[in-house]
Amino acid sequence: MSGTMKALVRRGNGLQMAEIAEPVPGPGQVIVRSLACGICGSDLHAVHHLDHIVETSRRSGAATTIDSTKDLVLGHEFCAEILDYGPDTERRFKPGTHVVSVPATFGPDGSELIGFSTRYNGAFAERLLLTEALCLEVPNGLPPERAALTEPLAVGTHAVAVGAPGPKSVAMVVGCGPVGLAVIVALKRRGVGPVIAADFSPTRRARAEKLGADIVVDPAAVSPHAHWSSFDVPATLAELSSAALAGRDLRDAIVFECVGVPGMLQNLIDHAPPMAHIVVVGVCMEDDRILPLVALNKQLRMSFAFGYSPEEFAETLRALAEGEVDSDQFLTDSVSLADAAEAFERLAAPGDQVKIIVEPGR
Amino acid sequence: MSGTMKALVRRGNGLQMAEIAEPVPGPGQVIVRSLACGICGSDLHAVHHLDHIVETSRRSGAATTIDSTKDLVLGHEFCAEILDYGPDTERRFKPGTHVVSVPATFGPDGSELIGFSTRYNGAFAERLLLTEALCLEVPNGLPPERAALTEPLAVGTHAVAVGAPGPKSVAMVVGCGPVGLAVIVALKRRGVGPVIAADFSPTRRARAEKLGADIVVDPAAVSPHAHWSSFDVPATLAELSSAALAGRDLRDAIVFECVGVPGMLQNLIDHAPPMAHIVVVGVCMEDDRILPLVALNKQLRMSFAFGYSPEEFAETLRALAEGEVDSDQFLTDSVSLADAAEAFERLAAPGDQVKIIVEPGR
Repeated sequence: MSGTMKALVRRGNGLQMAEIAEPVPGPGQVIVRSLACGICGSDLHAVHHLDHIVETSRRSGAATTIDSTKDLVLGHEFCAEILDYGPDTERRFKPGTHVVSVPATFGPDGSELIGFSTRYNGAFAERLLLTEALCLEVPNGLPPERAALTEPLAVGTHAVAVGAPGPKSVAMVVGCGPVGLAVIVALKRRGVGPVIAADFSPTRRARAEKLGADIVVDPAAVSPHAHWSSFDVPATLAELSSAALAGRDLRDAIVFECVGVPGMLQNLIDHAPPMAHIVVVGVCMEDDRILPLVALNKQLRMSFAFGYSPEEFAETLRALAEGEVDSDQFLTDSVSLADAAEAFERLAAPGDQVKIIVEPGR
Repeated sequence: MSGTMKALVRRGNGLQMAEIAEPVPGPGQVIVRSLACGICGSDLHAVHHLDHIVETSRRSGAATTIDSTKDLVLGHEFCAEILDYGPDTERRFKPGTHVVSVPATFGPDGSELIGFSTRYNGAFAERLLLTEALCLEVPNGLPPERAALTEPLAVGTHAVAVGAPGPKSVAMVVGCGPVGLAVIVALKRRGVGPVIAADFSPTRRARAEKLGADIVVDPAAVSPHAHWSSFDVPATLAELSSAALAGRDLRDAIVFECVGVPGMLQNLIDHAPPMAHIVVVGVCMEDDRILPLVALNKQLRMSFAFGYSPEEFAETLRALAEGEVDSDQFLTDSVSLADAAEAFERLAAPGDQVKIIVEPGR
């Protein structure tokens, strides 16, 4: 267990295969073999814009230790196999056990985000270190590439918890990439309906439909917001006033923003129904312009949803393992570590990919 | 009751005294004498930027009927005296009764905002029309200039309801003009504490303190956000992580934005604690730039609070009439209708004014 291992390394705004030092488990840590790890949109961004991520992270008050001049091994959506333990561990799992974990570790010198750390490598490598106390055994023989969906699906679980739908809520999911689809899964699991989903891609729309979206819209053909009125959601302030005066029974709107490009927020401020709750899940990396007066007139709420709690992560794993999620809709390709750099390129181009899984043991 | 009456008229981006047609009450309406009416920041804006208000209102989906080429009589924070009734009224109040009302009317041809309508004049006039069903009798002999504070104080009542403070909430009020002071009143009435208040003006800070703010800060000297940690609110993501790991008992932050200038939102996104709830009450009339990624990293919530419900309005009147509000802190001057245009100028300049009350009968 010493020497070196293969890893996909981010070095100087590019990705390359490299031999890196074998990690050595410290107190409370376990060394695991990476079996499967999904590529996330934030991974794509980190390759070219790591300095921007670090700067924004510091601006957000996070104690990040990333040194962007050093090699970085990405990969935070993983399933792994227990190999061996460091000191001060309980050895809760037999070697060979498949586990997932929230991508975080805490050691005596602070906590780190696995996959966004220059101290701990992520799962686009043969092996990595996890905190034993955070590991969850994968139940029911759920295959690794599906267990690796726990992390991106937990993002949807959390976003819907933040949206806090009630029995009369009508939900709209704008953007049906991995994040939007994860939100649809979480909405349907909670029995929220109807769910309106919008995406320009016919393939993604088909996936949204298979995952249970009730109305699926191509925004190039018709505005998804044309559908509110048919579900008793007043679409404008004028409609809200007359509906209120008429004593009509009304439903509330929750809009999940799962695109993350500049202009989307104001688009939703302009077109979401008055009193709507906008849950921002899409990661917009750039500055954005909004017109607060419109949001004020319409009394909108905006919640920025990021990550998930350990409980939401564990509950999502359970749902996957119980077969409550049609995970086929997420898995569009799988590649070896050697082919992962090329897969990053494919994901960065517009297309129909949802989740490409890297299998470092392949 | 026919002929003309005196009014302060907005005409061609300016204010002037004019004789305008006496209003005639329609079905369900009552004609009242304007006794006292506060000047609001939105009135100042309407004088010079009415087209912008109309355009934003339409963009927000409101069915506004304002014709900016016509005379507009502002004034929506009023107390008035019942004079006479139109047809189809219940004549609930004796002539001479003092009333307040949410500044709205609804007739057979739609609803209008009193004070922002070219069909119904506001209270900067000798007389105006109200909807009988919306009128509330002023109890306990509360003087008109204090009853006229019902509307601006109801804005604070509503903003705090939107903020939905819990028993562990720590509140910060940024900006101690009429809106910020109204929020402080509503917070203290609900027993929320501690309340941190910030304003550059020493006079406004003194008023905030008299209204019960626990910590009053001059942001030119020290950031108000320096105070979170002393109330067990983790001020940064790094503090939140270590506090969570240590199992510390934490309090949540609600920040009331009561300034309404471009840049304030991002200032709060940068400096509010992670997980904070930002309640936007200040009316920013211009485009604004935000960096959503910082809001996302910090998992902020933003609620845009506007207006109030009829119930919040009525409850605010009750609190004023019961002497639960130190209304002296709001009343900085009162003027006749003839002097109101000059009072607008004084309010528009930076200074220590809070609320100038116009008394059209003076």
